[in-house]
Amino acid sequence: MEIKIMKNILDANDRLAAENRAYFSNRHITAVNVMASPGSGKTSVILKIIEAFGKETGISVIEGDIASSIDADTIDRLGIPVVQINTGGGCHLDANMIQAAVKDLALKDNSLLFIENVGNLVCPSAFDVGETLRMIIASVPEGHDKPYKYTSMFEAADVIILNKMDLMPYIDFDKESFYKGIKALNTKAPIFEISCRTGFGLKEFLQWLKNQASDN
Amino acid sequence: MEIKIMKNILDANDRLAAENRAYFSNRHITAVNVMASPGSGKTSVILKIIEAFGKETGISVIEGDIASSIDADTIDRLGIPVVQINTGGGCHLDANMIQAAVKDLALKDNSLLFIENVGNLVCPSAFDVGETLRMIIASVPEGHDKPYKYTSMFEAADVIILNKMDLMPYIDFDKESFYKGIKALNTKAPIFEISCRTGFGLKEFLQWLKNQASDN
Repeated sequence: MEIKIMKNILDANDRLAAENRAYFSNRHITAVNVMASPGSGKTSVILKIIEAFGKETGISVIEGDIASSIDADTIDRLGIPVVQINTGGGCHLDANMIQAAVKDLALKDNSLLFIENVGNLVCPSAFDVGETLRMIIASVPEGHDKPYKYTSMFEAADVIILNKMDLMPYIDFDKESFYKGIKALNTKAPIFEISCRTGFGLKEFLQWLKNQASDN
Repeated sequence: MEIKIMKNILDANDRLAAENRAYFSNRHITAVNVMASPGSGKTSVILKIIEAFGKETGISVIEGDIASSIDADTIDRLGIPVVQINTGGGCHLDANMIQAAVKDLALKDNSLLFIENVGNLVCPSAFDVGETLRMIIASVPEGHDKPYKYTSMFEAADVIILNKMDLMPYIDFDKESFYKGIKALNTKAPIFEISCRTGFGLKEFLQWLKNQASDN
């Protein structure tokens, strides 16, 4: 019985996700679902993209958090349209929440939408929100073993970021093991090593993202 | 209807958690539910406790992961009794899983049991496993805003660890804001600043833990 209910929830979510996906596709909107552990740098990466692409590109942001509007306030101060979703305990965003937030945002055609999911390397991977791209951010201090432990997240990724490269000298991080773990799950997603703090590697990542958006 | 089912699941979990709690209490076993984001140092903290207290104290470990037995293998190599629970996608441990694992462990009276939950700063806080103490580990590179965003976890804590203090010089971490966020939710839990890498602060934390176990 529990399983049946769960299936119904996921079915309903998939139906709404398909509606969102059609909406984004018809308007050539690139919607990026940004997923990561708490504190991996989701907001920092989005801020770097805003800084590089500028307001004129038409960037909007949906912030997902259990509580608080800390990240939405930061985005709002830059004059970027942003909606904060507080899940009130919920561990992930779903397609219904995104549909409601999108109604508030009045997105432009050919624009970019960043959906910052709740910081959680488990649950968000099970809920399609209709995104164009799934971006997973790992960070050096979390350690190289994450792809072995949080398989579904790395499996589902369209692009993987390894952030906080500036901390590499102070951490026992086995890069070979990290890459090996990812390649066992996902051979298609490009992996970008970056540091939002120093700017390391951002140029290549931002160029890739620009290409994805213009192809869309 | 969904809410009703969820309530039934949580009711059933609470019943099993109460059984576990009675079992631990009758045998003066201190069961510590260790919860944190992925890569905050849950296993590292447990390893430091094993190193300090020694095998003779009677330490056992339950490792919770979606996949892999990386952490259980590390514990096993030290000759410490360990059971690995693979949740296969599940985002938290529950009381039923702990009851099954405890049957396998043949715990001694007056011993210590560490339950390393799935790396997730959201869902594990909703599932009582019958533990004696809830230990939350935050880490410096995750940032000082975590108590504001992951409220239920910090609210529920009996003790809070701030790990990876050795990285403080390389991170913009506002310690005042971190403490303020916690104090708004939880005035009872002691907070220990430590570094598993350098050993900083471990003495005070280990002394506190020893007192808790002997009071139990």
